[in-house]
Amino acid sequence: MISNKMQEIVAGNSMIRAMFEEGKRLAEIHGAENVYDFSLGNPNVPPPTQIIDAINNTLSSPDIHGYMNNSGFESTRTAIANSLNKRYSQSLTEKEIVMAVGAAGAINVILKSILNPNDEVIVFAPYFVEYKHYVANFDGKLVIVPPNPPSFLPDLDGLSSAINTNTKAVIINTPNNPTGVVYDSETLRQLGEVLSAKEKELGISICLISDEPYREIAYDNIDVPCVLNFYHNTFIAYSYSKSLSLPGERIGYICVNPSMVHKETVLSALNVATRILGFVNAPSLFQKVIEQLVDTEIDITFYKENRDILYNHFTSIGLECTYPAGAFYLFPKSPISDDKQFCQDAKKFNLLLVPGSGFGCPGYFRVSYCVSRNTVINSLDAFTQLMNTYKN
Amino acid sequence: MISNKMQEIVAGNSMIRAMFEEGKRLAEIHGAENVYDFSLGNPNVPPPTQIIDAINNTLSSPDIHGYMNNSGFESTRTAIANSLNKRYSQSLTEKEIVMAVGAAGAINVILKSILNPNDEVIVFAPYFVEYKHYVANFDGKLVIVPPNPPSFLPDLDGLSSAINTNTKAVIINTPNNPTGVVYDSETLRQLGEVLSAKEKELGISICLISDEPYREIAYDNIDVPCVLNFYHNTFIAYSYSKSLSLPGERIGYICVNPSMVHKETVLSALNVATRILGFVNAPSLFQKVIEQLVDTEIDITFYKENRDILYNHFTSIGLECTYPAGAFYLFPKSPISDDKQFCQDAKKFNLLLVPGSGFGCPGYFRVSYCVSRNTVINSLDAFTQLMNTYKN
Repeated sequence: MISNKMQEIVAGNSMIRAMFEEGKRLAEIHGAENVYDFSLGNPNVPPPTQIIDAINNTLSSPDIHGYMNNSGFESTRTAIANSLNKRYSQSLTEKEIVMAVGAAGAINVILKSILNPNDEVIVFAPYFVEYKHYVANFDGKLVIVPPNPPSFLPDLDGLSSAINTNTKAVIINTPNNPTGVVYDSETLRQLGEVLSAKEKELGISICLISDEPYREIAYDNIDVPCVLNFYHNTFIAYSYSKSLSLPGERIGYICVNPSMVHKETVLSALNVATRILGFVNAPSLFQKVIEQLVDTEIDITFYKENRDILYNHFTSIGLECTYPAGAFYLFPKSPISDDKQFCQDAKKFNLLLVPGSGFGCPGYFRVSYCVSRNTVINSLDAFTQLMNTYKN
Repeated sequence: MISNKMQEIVAGNSMIRAMFEEGKRLAEIHGAENVYDFSLGNPNVPPPTQIIDAINNTLSSPDIHGYMNNSGFESTRTAIANSLNKRYSQSLTEKEIVMAVGAAGAINVILKSILNPNDEVIVFAPYFVEYKHYVANFDGKLVIVPPNPPSFLPDLDGLSSAINTNTKAVIINTPNNPTGVVYDSETLRQLGEVLSAKEKELGISICLISDEPYREIAYDNIDVPCVLNFYHNTFIAYSYSKSLSLPGERIGYICVNPSMVHKETVLSALNVATRILGFVNAPSLFQKVIEQLVDTEIDITFYKENRDILYNHFTSIGLECTYPAGAFYLFPKSPISDDKQFCQDAKKFNLLLVPGSGFGCPGYFRVSYCVSRNTVINSLDAFTQLMNTYKN
């Protein structure tokens, strides 16, 4: 019954589900509070309380549940443009904002708009595993630039070598899932230069897609630079899933750099792609909610404290780990080269971790610390015990 | 910058936008109240007041905005299964329900799950114009069975001739956009027989996709039969857009016939397709809202009265029109063979209509009567004047 492509993907997916089922099995045996599940990126900080006010303010508006332009309510897009202008000294208008069904929806709409079959899309390992599906949805080819530890900043020589006349797009994700690394201005400037130089050299247009669901999750006042400043053909794919803890509501946007070539045509394509992929529009009530919350500052202290407790413990027990400046992930080096085996071993201590292999980066593992403080505290001894099994 | 496929689609879309802009231009000249816009399928009856209560009941629940299984909250899917069981004497469980981002999302998820490139998908003209994009998204081939006026029931001989070993699916839409026709049990029984016979004859599996956003919009107590009763490999694509006037919220579901072959694999594929197409899940708050409203009966008297006023007027001025038993569309025969010219002529009387050519059915035009009563009443004279121009 199902398509050939989907048969492969469903088979792969059943392995992930097997891991999930294993977690549930462990929770049944040991009690959920004694299983330390660091496998999911589901924010556990509640949404800001302003959400409820914003919903209540909205419910009396007429046409709040109706269709609007496929790109979204003009008022919402204007509020987002103004907020970005204020924060990042941009000159955006509502025209350059297209509301999207989360960042996943945004990236699919962008790729639908730009990819011809066999066009190449470059990602930097470790990378969010769903990118390969998003690119395959439009018969594109994923090209992976190898990991660049311990900084995990993008390997720009690797990028330069990977670009050819079939290259259509490069996806970056900063703050990064799974490493937590934030790309600095100088890195982004150099990345933009590589892309601009290659555009000229090869006579092609290359799109930079900046996947930014973690933009607001950055610690210690580190600067998360606005990618629009560094390259003309840039799309931002933003989601409120992580910053406002609304992953289930599927609300985000695409921002197109005002200096993008053929910008008007690209914006028309994004509008049409939103419709024909079946999104039609981002959910209407939450567009109006977001419109009221564009400048809401959120408290990320809880995540930062989780990070500090885990990072300090990891380094104290001999785990090598790049200090993560953002997102809610740690990406330590596995003490044995086989990261899948390591994550299997971890289960014996009720620790659920994700192998780096799943992100195109074997030899590492991901720890999602968007979990309760109790889980963090109670897990520390389990990590110590796990590490002890590798000492001889 | 944009893909070759999208270049064609964007060009086509700009014609539709030109029509829309023309409507705005007319409204500016004559005043919006003097322009009779029958071009859109945006419900104008407000959502039931229970929506606000359901939202308020939901806001205090924990995890309401979080991720859940990609197929949706189990409690919502159970409520929907139980409601369908009660109304249609089925034996569905939550397993056979997959929450979707409206019917458009549902159909894309189904087609992603089942289509190989060049697989054929059969539709009956007149058909909802977006089907061709949905099928093209997965490199399928749309096969159109010609219209069957004046009943506009599916031409089953035409269907039988259209099926071959490349056939993968048939899409039906009842109550129908644009004709308003409701398929009766006998028609569905025969349709199921054709599909079952062809499956055996050709040794293939054929999916029936029943697109049912108008299921609850049916008048005069006409029976809208449950399609699951007539064919095993049936998917229902449902949306609350029209029945609860929530088109902007993007909430609906897929229902899989419990007797579908390889059902478990198909359900896994739907789950994965929901994720990788970028929907991830249907919006979470509205899943919980729908859970409370599955049995809400809605008042469609307003639409019925609009239908009666327009239908009676149309027949009185000599327009031939199939009596529509459901949805909120009339699909009269154009008094001149060129339906596009007719819709151009109509604009002179401030009437905005959609040519049947847009639905694969030249010589007819669509009138969406989900508009204010004033628009209906005030338009009658304009229709009379328009028809008078064709009398000599």
